[in-house]
Amino acid sequence: MRQFGEIEGVYPGQIFANRAELAKSGIHPPNQAGISGSIIEGADSIVLSGGYEDDQDYGDRILYTGAGGRDEKTKQQIADQELTGKNLALAKSKLYQLPVRVTRSHKHKSEYSPDEGYCYAGLYIVEDYWCERGISGHYIWRYSLVSCELAGLDKQNDTKELDKPPGYKETERKVVLVKRIVRDTTKARRVKEWHGYKCQVCGMALETSAGLYAEAAHIQPLGMPHSGPDDESNILCLCPNHHVLFDNGGFTINEDMSLNGIDGHLITNRKHKIDIRFITYHQEHYQQLK
Amino acid sequence: MRQFGEIEGVYPGQIFANRAELAKSGIHPPNQAGISGSIIEGADSIVLSGGYEDDQDYGDRILYTGAGGRDEKTKQQIADQELTGKNLALAKSKLYQLPVRVTRSHKHKSEYSPDEGYCYAGLYIVEDYWCERGISGHYIWRYSLVSCELAGLDKQNDTKELDKPPGYKETERKVVLVKRIVRDTTKARRVKEWHGYKCQVCGMALETSAGLYAEAAHIQPLGMPHSGPDDESNILCLCPNHHVLFDNGGFTINEDMSLNGIDGHLITNRKHKIDIRFITYHQEHYQQLK
Repeated sequence: MRQFGEIEGVYPGQIFANRAELAKSGIHPPNQAGISGSIIEGADSIVLSGGYEDDQDYGDRILYTGAGGRDEKTKQQIADQELTGKNLALAKSKLYQLPVRVTRSHKHKSEYSPDEGYCYAGLYIVEDYWCERGISGHYIWRYSLVSCELAGLDKQNDTKELDKPPGYKETERKVVLVKRIVRDTTKARRVKEWHGYKCQVCGMALETSAGLYAEAAHIQPLGMPHSGPDDESNILCLCPNHHVLFDNGGFTINEDMSLNGIDGHLITNRKHKIDIRFITYHQEHYQQLK
Repeated sequence: MRQFGEIEGVYPGQIFANRAELAKSGIHPPNQAGISGSIIEGADSIVLSGGYEDDQDYGDRILYTGAGGRDEKTKQQIADQELTGKNLALAKSKLYQLPVRVTRSHKHKSEYSPDEGYCYAGLYIVEDYWCERGISGHYIWRYSLVSCELAGLDKQNDTKELDKPPGYKETERKVVLVKRIVRDTTKARRVKEWHGYKCQVCGMALETSAGLYAEAAHIQPLGMPHSGPDDESNILCLCPNHHVLFDNGGFTINEDMSLNGIDGHLITNRKHKIDIRFITYHQEHYQQLK
């Protein structure tokens, strides 16, 4: 299984002598490709290696160029790039907000590049992707990446860390947090796949350029004071509209799966067992009193 | 006009001798009510004064009880609370993610309360609201608030602050950032009001328990490298579903306001002048290449 997030034992700033060592560490498994990923799972890692004239590097923010369209010998951009293969994988990481590992090669021209070898820079989020004419005049796909630290994502689960042991180190904390984010994503994705990304209320799946989109809605909310579990039996697959309504008193679900507040029934699926206790908790707390 | 966010010249940790001085500072204008706000604009400020038995205070996180249902003499909870008036105003602050000023009275029982007077604690976001049976057995409305600092919201615009003057102070920065968030909110809200919170693509408005909900979508994205302006002429009023599609290559808009990628026309409004240059920029960057 593709590993997203931090790799145990590797810290941001660590240097690798060559691509083979970088691959062996688990940071960036492929030996040549700049993007590691698949169109189903998304991209887990990229390497900035100075190959693309349109790349721009501001440290915490990076404008990265997709793959393809170059002459193999001259490395010149000679054709348009397409949103397929590795480029689509990186777009999917935006759609699902997956953490992407970033590594800089000494060949990449920036003040953040190492003098020799490959320097692992840490986790980034793909904030946006789009296409535009590059310096060559050909269309390229561009990705803006922002460091998870800058985005405040390394703070997001701080409140769950209240009982951390004495002598707990900063780098360890980050690894723990990112693993948690990724584990959540796996369960959420499983529920979405069971439903084919179709909303369990309206049956619609949103078609974006990076594929189908749906959201995972926790029925009994996570975190204090509700303390719902992060488990498939406590997750619904909803479109963004029905997610907003579900979280803000727009509708609740009755025990027989009929809806309260809007018409219809929850669309269910044999693989996806919902725990009725979470449905009841949600109804007790979010249903409109008369 | 109701003032959201930080008040110039007041810093978190500042003490006020009484409610009259607190009101005069602009932090919490009403002289008695615990919640300052309106059901149209949302709530801008709350005071924790020890009046509600169900309040819980963990510093960066607060569980706050809505108003009403108490006996005026004994202060006992003798009836259910309703999601109306000030309670609805505070729910609206969740829906619109407005910053709420929090002040603790010496009468509020917590380790964060001042020994005397009223201590302004800073900005919080209403993360969630719901109703449940309180200690008295009557239904109460509860709000979970989280400090903007903990939520990472004070970091959000850091990259726009690159050219800060020498000797720039930390507290000043926060004031600047929060004003920016609030200014954005004002423009976004104006566009939504022009359209009655109906999506400019599907014509639907989402009905939540705190009122109608829509999202403001920037046509030419803000921030680098797109640098679109935060102006009404660059904002659309969309439902969350069409917002996701618009931001992820699901559709673009043609010059005649017909849609590309999905059927239909953009619903327009005389008051709301959209600049065609932003539409063109979006189409050039987010339209699917064949």
